[in-house]
Amino acid sequence: MASYLITGCSRGLGLALTSHLLSFPPSEVRVIIATSRTESSPLKDLTEKSGGRVKFIQLETTNETSIKNAVTESEKILGEKGLDVLINNAGIQRFAPDGIASMNDLEDHFNTNVLSVHHVTRAFIPLLQKGSLKKIVNVTTTLGSIAMANIFAQTPCPAYKISKTMLNMLTVQYSLEYASQGFTIFAISPGWLRTDLGGDAADLSVEEGAKATTEKIMSVGKEQNGEFLNIYVKGFGHYDGTNPPW
Amino acid sequence: MASYLITGCSRGLGLALTSHLLSFPPSEVRVIIATSRTESSPLKDLTEKSGGRVKFIQLETTNETSIKNAVTESEKILGEKGLDVLINNAGIQRFAPDGIASMNDLEDHFNTNVLSVHHVTRAFIPLLQKGSLKKIVNVTTTLGSIAMANIFAQTPCPAYKISKTMLNMLTVQYSLEYASQGFTIFAISPGWLRTDLGGDAADLSVEEGAKATTEKIMSVGKEQNGEFLNIYVKGFGHYDGTNPPW
Ligand SMILES: NC(=O)c1ccc[n+]([C@@H]2O[C@H](COP(=O)([O-])OP(=O)(O)OC[C@H]3O[C@@H](n4cnc5c(N)ncnc54)[C@H](OP(=O)(O)O)[C@@H]3O)[C@@H](O)[C@H]2O)c1
Ligand SMILES: NC(=O)c1ccc[n+]([C@@H]2O[C@H](COP(=O)([O-])OP(=O)(O)OC[C@H]3O[C@@H](n4cnc5c(N)ncnc54)[C@H](OP(=O)(O)O)[C@@H]3O)[C@@H](O)[C@H]2O)c1
Repeated sequence: MASYLITGCSRGLGLALTSHLLSFPPSEVRVIIATSRTESSPLKDLTEKSGGRVKFIQLETTNETSIKNAVTESEKILGEKGLDVLINNAGIQRFAPDGIASMNDLEDHFNTNVLSVHHVTRAFIPLLQKGSLKKIVNVTTTLGSIAMANIFAQTPCPAYKISKTMLNMLTVQYSLEYASQGFTIFAISPGWLRTDLGGDAADLSVEEGAKATTEKIMSVGKEQNGEFLNIYVKGFGHYDGTNPPW
Repeated sequence: MASYLITGCSRGLGLALTSHLLSFPPSEVRVIIATSRTESSPLKDLTEKSGGRVKFIQLETTNETSIKNAVTESEKILGEKGLDVLINNAGIQRFAPDGIASMNDLEDHFNTNVLSVHHVTRAFIPLLQKGSLKKIVNVTTTLGSIAMANIFAQTPCPAYKISKTMLNMLTVQYSLEYASQGFTIFAISPGWLRTDLGGDAADLSVEEGAKATTEKIMSVGKEQNGEFLNIYVKGFGHYDGTNPPW
């Protein structure tokens, strides 16, 4: 009977999570509020075929007025039951092929990948307080692991990595503050997925990533509040389900 | 014979580092470029009494024009020998006593504590490439350790903590990129110090902090490139000189 709200559902992982969640019976997943800046045609199709279980709301996460409107619209859909699971999925990744000294987009990454998550999260907390699961899922990446940085030294997206490290600490700060209210707030790396962001050479299809991410989101309990989670995918040593180091 | 440039020298740790470095003989510390937004009277005094070894340059680290001018002025002072050690010390800390949902200053902390460090660092890299030590010191804090976040849960400065975690990852990204050019780039926690920022209840005087921080900066070699360093102060278990976890 859970309700979900996901950001960045026009394409990629957000769209695939919406589609995968819809495959659960209404007794498990009641409603999915799929938000994005614009309603892409695949998202429109999904919404129309969902029997009313996928609801679209316009949400540009870097715009506080848009966030406020999305909260108002969500309240109308959710009513007194509130929201169970918020998935902060929207994100950007740009490259600095000429090295970190040429990085001119740290601010953009900060705005979309971190500050927006803060603004969306605090705006939806009142609805999550009314919900029963009280889960907040921040979609991060192992590229944001400081301890693993040497492994990914050749991936030329420093602003993306640095912003996701910051998102991890934002996640932990929220988790510490809301633990006493029964929240479960965590960061999850969804795997390297074939999306516009992940590219064609990635390990997994976006459907595989969405499935593994959903399994993890559903199985996590309060004892994992504040953790940095990784997906489990059989046959992939680096998707063994154990937490990456910070 | 080393040359130093420090940001945020009007007061606090930056001023104390300038003063402490001046106590070394010119054979060890040739010149200290003490920068700040305004030349405070203690800094002016120090400069005047330094026999020409402390040079003041105006530097507002959030302003790229100011950074550019500071590089030009520094080149005039340093000449062909370049810069040996850059200490990114300037920083701000504000509080969110009503909890993380009331945090409205994440952007300010990002700008001063992270983005400015990126801009200052990349602007001074050409001068550091001419220098012989090639050290970049980013002043961070154990409050920015994600793994230690639960220990500091009661310290109500989430934006500060989150920004310093981001600074740590910025440091590591720079360290990976410039390792092959012989740079040593690291983050150091200077201890909890009695400054305007640290407050009166802090563990150490700013002089003790400046001494311990300088000892660490001087002793670090290339094998510590990319590390998160902690000071050593006899009698303090948490200043045992071992690296904090990320
Ligand atoms: N793909 C991977 O390999 C991978 C690995 C680790 C983590 N992740 C994370 O997974 C998340 C989704 O990535 P993806 O691969 O699905 O990327 P993607 O294919 O590029 O899709 C990104 C989504 O985020 C949305 N978005 C971006 N900025 C937004 C904003 N300001 N407001 C609202 N929506 C916004 C995009 O909307 P528009 O269509 O309007 O641009 C799009 O729906 C990201 O947080 C990413 O960092 C991905
Ligand atoms: N004190 C502690 O316990 C402690 C512990 C861990 C880490 N640290 C770190 O140590 C560093 C110094 O802290 P502190 O205790 O000396 O703080 P402080 O006493 O508040 O002094 C801060 C210094 O930074 C300068 N500054 C701030 N914003 C600036 C900007 N945009 N451009 C140029 N200068 C700027 C200030 O200049 P104005 O005078 O012009 O404002 C001042 O000189 C900070 O990075 C801090 O995070 C301190």
